[in-house]
Formats: sequence, structure tokens, C-alpha cells
Amino acid sequence: MAETSAPARYTELTDLYSDRAKMTGPGIVGLDPRVIRKVISFSGGYPDATSLPIQDIIEATRVALERDGEWALQYAFGSGIPELVEQLRIKLERDQGIKAGVENILITNGGSQALGLIYEMFVNPGDVILSEAPYFLGAVHYARQNGAEVHEIGLDDEGLIVADLEAELKALRAAGKRAKFLYLVPNFQNPTGITYSLERRKQIIALAQEYGLPILEDDAYFDLRFDGEKVPTFYTLDGSGLVMYCGTFSKILSAGIRLGWVVAAPDVIAHLSGLKTDYGTGAFASAVAAEFAGSGTLLEHIQELKALYHARRDVMLAALEAEMPAGTSWTHPTGGFFIWVTLPAGVTSAEVTRLAQQRGVGVSDGTYFYTRGGGESNVRLSYSFNTADEIRTGVRILGDVIREVQAVHG
Amino acid sequence: MAETSAPARYTELTDLYSDRAKMTGPGIVGLDPRVIRKVISFSGGYPDATSLPIQDIIEATRVALERDGEWALQYAFGSGIPELVEQLRIKLERDQGIKAGVENILITNGGSQALGLIYEMFVNPGDVILSEAPYFLGAVHYARQNGAEVHEIGLDDEGLIVADLEAELKALRAAGKRAKFLYLVPNFQNPTGITYSLERRKQIIALAQEYGLPILEDDAYFDLRFDGEKVPTFYTLDGSGLVMYCGTFSKILSAGIRLGWVVAAPDVIAHLSGLKTDYGTGAFASAVAAEFAGSGTLLEHIQELKALYHARRDVMLAALEAEMPAGTSWTHPTGGFFIWVTLPAGVTSAEVTRLAQQRGVGVSDGTYFYTRGGGESNVRLSYSFNTADEIRTGVRILGDVIREVQAVHG
Repeated sequence: MAETSAPARYTELTDLYSDRAKMTGPGIVGLDPRVIRKVISFSGGYPDATSLPIQDIIEATRVALERDGEWALQYAFGSGIPELVEQLRIKLERDQGIKAGVENILITNGGSQALGLIYEMFVNPGDVILSEAPYFLGAVHYARQNGAEVHEIGLDDEGLIVADLEAELKALRAAGKRAKFLYLVPNFQNPTGITYSLERRKQIIALAQEYGLPILEDDAYFDLRFDGEKVPTFYTLDGSGLVMYCGTFSKILSAGIRLGWVVAAPDVIAHLSGLKTDYGTGAFASAVAAEFAGSGTLLEHIQELKALYHARRDVMLAALEAEMPAGTSWTHPTGGFFIWVTLPAGVTSAEVTRLAQQRGVGVSDGTYFYTRGGGESNVRLSYSFNTADEIRTGVRILGDVIREVQAVHG
Repeated sequence: MAETSAPARYTELTDLYSDRAKMTGPGIVGLDPRVIRKVISFSGGYPDATSLPIQDIIEATRVALERDGEWALQYAFGSGIPELVEQLRIKLERDQGIKAGVENILITNGGSQALGLIYEMFVNPGDVILSEAPYFLGAVHYARQNGAEVHEIGLDDEGLIVADLEAELKALRAAGKRAKFLYLVPNFQNPTGITYSLERRKQIIALAQEYGLPILEDDAYFDLRFDGEKVPTFYTLDGSGLVMYCGTFSKILSAGIRLGWVVAAPDVIAHLSGLKTDYGTGAFASAVAAEFAGSGTLLEHIQELKALYHARRDVMLAALEAEMPAGTSWTHPTGGFFIWVTLPAGVTSAEVTRLAQQRGVGVSDGTYFYTRGGGESNVRLSYSFNTADEIRTGVRILGDVIREVQAVHG
């Protein structure tokens, strides 16, 4: 057969694209993720590399495939392979206090797919959704992809501001509209690192039940608590089927294994399963994760990760204390990956992000986490990916950059 | 934290579902795929279980993770990890004669996701797409999910009927409409097993170029040819960027590893990448597959699979010859998994499918593969999953069933 080179010119197909494709826009092509090693990266929510349980995953793969390779390598139509669903049920009941049946669970291709499917399942173009703000970049993306009109509700140290939520719900009701759902990250929120208090959760649930407002509870960081007691999930506090609870193995096992989940009412799970176009989440990765969880390795690994990230958070908080100029403030997360920095008056996140990048330190511009303005004097720092020494160096450079920007404007 | 049982009653959320969710309907929940072992299953396109390269995959996992576990277990945003994209480029050039750059390739979560994304990218509700018919069940599903109006074009032994395609294109043009794309499976078609001739492919490409009609070429079975020479792909015959070429590792490596691909024009690839809600196809499975391909194991494995499925096809054809009553006919595929049986006059696929199932033989009702009627006297048989003895037994039972139905109506 003759070889053919890729054509130099292509027929233009743009006119044929769907509204959904046009709203979403192009994605990333050809990126080698190793680029993040070229900077001290406080920008991504990347798990620590040295903590990845390489030998344990090799062993889990061997055990799972030798025991049941026929099915680990076969199609797995539907909501998840039985072994992983069972291990997840055990984990949810033990750790989260969530008792879920098989009919309440969908295993997804990473937590991202779980969120993406829920947006797809509820949002028609023009529909209103509510979101805490600042909020997770992925959720910003799914809102745009589905043409959602996002009404943003501000956060304080205990969670989103209930009076603002209530005002929003009343205004929507007065306008004859109904929000499709409320999106929030209750623990060690992305990007601010704050955790919703129990009282705040109860107030939000009460409003949700009064207004018939579903809640998309994105609990990606649940297991990584360093300080204090667990707070009950919105899912357990509700108990009426209004909450869709999403989680992920990305932060506690491996992001590359792409496994997440939704826990929700049976009809919601069935429709999400219908919308999954990939013929079921991979049996191979699922079987490896089920073995990793079932053997007890997952629980041990979570303990190791908590110690590791706890130490890194402490290093970053101490470095911020030592290096930041007066007028800078930041959050003090009790778990997770993120610290949210408020820059001194007159210093913009755009300048700081650009200059820090030039000096080899990646930080996330606060404006990324809003869709209607906001975050102009904030940056998000992640302490998950770099070593203690890199964290100290990176924060020192960041302090220098902020002072330089101040000097220019001073 | 208090345990909570799953609630007995849930708040009804149906009113809030998107149009897309309503069009799609519920999917499968809680299915254990092992159920197919309870029957002789000619119904699914399941790869043979004994052929699955369990030890080779364990070894590829070990090598890939020990060499580069940091990145195999990390996020892989974008269009695919560089190692797998490179191995796919080598494979496509060597086997398919397709020369593709990094900008032409998207690695997907199975071939199914590749197809699902393309429907999503081109179809607004009410849009017309063209499809060969009978056609792949997954494509039926994606059409419904996106609200496509499918215009079906019949097949003969050499592919879809060009005169019907041309008449359809003219009628659409006269009505001021334009089809979003034409869907087809050129090799060992699902469900009929037929292969498009070179002449037919050229005629279809000529029409596509004349009418600006994109082609979705689903070549899932390309590598599994037993007889005759490879026919050039639509992708190479076109060369103008009208063709989106989809393939999969499901039939040649493992369905459970969930890896497929699209080769297309750069702007199409970029937009498909944007629509992927799962933050990139899994680095773990991708690294294992890249090692499996790069070590030469994939090429050896394809040779073994061809020998295996070739023998099974021969067993099924011989069994059909021996067992089918007069008036039954069937296709003679030169590769792939499927044979399409036309039942004797007066015998319906519904009766045959139901009775065969009662006797422990699963076959696929021909009507599943059409959306506007058709297939009432056809069943699809897959010879991929069962042993030679099971194939002989299953075909004997099928022959008995057909004769019984004939007797009842006779």
C-alpha cells in the first residue's frame, strides 16, 4: 500500500461543527506533561511524583491479571466492574460514612469525567447553574462547554456565603427560573484551600431542600486532611437524593490511572451511565485499583500521603511567613493541595504570574478561577508537587517578584 | 461520622435533565460482564478470552512503570502521551500506510469514545448524518444521543450503494441541507462482515469531495484480515482532510485497556481534544500499550489473533454449511468477527433470537442495526468469543431453532 504524507492543506470543516464544539473551542494537542519539570511548579494540582506507588501498582497489576485477567482485559459495559464498585462501597462507608448500593455508583474515567457528565446531564445552553467562586478550572470549562450561565457566589473562611446564595435563589424564583445545580468543593477547596464548616453545610442543605436545588459536591481532596476532624459530607447531611457526590482516585492512588466516581440517586446514575460514550470505564485500570484497595495498600498509602503533604504545607506556610512582604495574606488550609494568596494593594496577579514564570516559578493567576471578573489580586499556590527545598526557593523568588512589582508601582 | 443508609425515596430530578440526557436515556448499571459466559455467545463483539496476552501485559506494565512510572501515573492533559502517539504513528505508517503527525492524532478512551466525540463535535439536534445500514450499534446510540437524523444507505457485497448515496446527496442539496458526515466501517463491516472494494471506495471519495461530505471511517477491524490483500483506507485515498479515521486497541491488545484513536485534520483533532471531558486518556494504560507496541509484542500478537480468528471463521462457515436449512444464506467475511445471516422466508429474527436465547445461544437480532426498519430476517453472529466446539454446538442449535420456527409457520 502506498504511503501518503499528511496533506499540507486541509478542507475547511468549521462550518459543520456543532454548537457544543464551537462553545468549547480547541483543546491541547501534542503536549508532553514533562514540561512542568522545567519550572518550580506551584501552578498545577499535580500529585507528588516520588510518592507514586510504582512497585505496589506493578504488584497489584500482577495479582489482578493472574487471578482474573480474562475479565480485566475484556469490555466492561455499564457502571463499573463489580470488584471496584465493591471496594468503593467499603471505602465510602468506612471513610466518608456514605452507605451506597450498586445502583448509586458510577465509576468514571477520572473525577473529571464525573463532573463533565453531570454538566452534560443537567445543562441545556442558557441554563443557570450556581457555583462557589473562585472555583475549579475544570468546572469553568464544563460550564462553557455546555453553554451554562454561571451565577457565582462568594466564599468566606467557612464556605460560600449563605445570604448571597439565598438572595440568588429568591431572585431566580422571582424571575420564574430554576438553577440546575450548585457546584462546590467542600474540603480544602480548589483554589482557596478553605473547608466548609458543619454549620454552613447545614444552612446550604436547608436552602437546597427548600428550593429543590441539586448540589454537585466535588470532594476530590476528602482523604487528604492534616488537621482537625472530618466534617460530614453534603451527601450524608441531605439524604434526600439532591446531592451528587463526586470523588477520585487521582489524589490517593494515581492520576494516570484515571478513575473517579459519582454517588447519586439511581435514576441519575442510570442517565449518567447512558451519557458515557466510552463503553464503560476501563476494566484493566479498575481491576488494578480494586486490588490496590482490597489488599489494604490504599489505606496505608493515604497515611503516607497525608504525612507528606502535611509537611509540605507546613514548609510553604513557613516560607510565606518568612518571605512575603507586608500587605500579603494567605489562607491556612487544613488539608489538600492549595493556598490562596492575596497580593498587596496595587500588585496584580497578571504581573506576578508573568514575572514569576520568567524566573522559573509557575503560579496560577487568580483570574482563571472566575468567569465574570475577580481574582485580580490573587494567585493560587500548590504545595503538592515540589520538594521542601524547591518550595522554599520558589516562595523566596515569589516574594522578590512581589516586592519588585510594588517598587515599580511605588 | 454517622453512617447514613441510602434513602428509600429520592427527590425527583427528571424535570432538570438536559435535552441530551433525555434523548440518550438511561444506560446499564450494575452489570457483571461475566454473564455472557452463561450462554454460547455469538451476540457480542467480544475478543477471545484465551487469547488475551495476560503475561505480556504484566511484563509491559513492569517495564513501563519501572522506566517511567512518575509520568505513567501522572496526569496526561491533551491528546495523548508522547510514547503512545509515537508508537501509533509507527503502526499507522507501517500497517495502514497513513503518515500522520502529532497534530493529526488524538488518543481516546477506547474507539467508542473516538466515535462519540466525533458525533458530539459535528451534530446539533436535527442535523442530518448519513450512514451505511445495517450499522454498528454504538453509532446508533451516538446518533440518538446527539439528536441526529440518520439517513440510511444500503449495502451490497462491495460496500454502500453509490447510486443511493448520490441520490441522497442530491436530495439534500435540493432541500438546501448538508449532511454533517457519512459513517462507515470499511473492513469486515459490523454487522455484515463485508469489505468495501477499492473501486467502491474511490467512487465514494469522489462524491464526498464533490459534495464536501466528511467521512467518519471506523476501521476497528483493520488488522484482522485473513484473506486477500489490504485495501487502501478512505483516509489515504482522500488526502484532503475530509476523512476522520478511527481505530482501536480493543481488538488487537485488550478491550479492557480502553485505548483508541482518531487521525484527522489538525483543527478537528484540537476540537475533539477540547470536547474530551476526562483530562486526557489515561497515562497508565497508554504507557503499558506503548511498551507492548514498542517491544514488538503487538505485532506478534496480531499474527496470533489472525490465525485464531481465521480458524474460528472457518469453523463457523463450515458449521453453517452443515446445519442451516435450505433458504438460509450468509456472508463470507475475509476478516474481523462477524457473519450476517439471512433467514429463510417467513422466519423472523425476533423469533429466532428469543428461542436461541432460551436454548443457551445468544445471537444479535438484525433489527438492532437499523433505526428506520430493516433486519427483520437477519441475525448477526460473532465467531470471536467461543471455542470451535462451542461454535459447532451453537450453530447446530441455531439450525434446529430455525427449522422449528419454519415448522410452526409451515
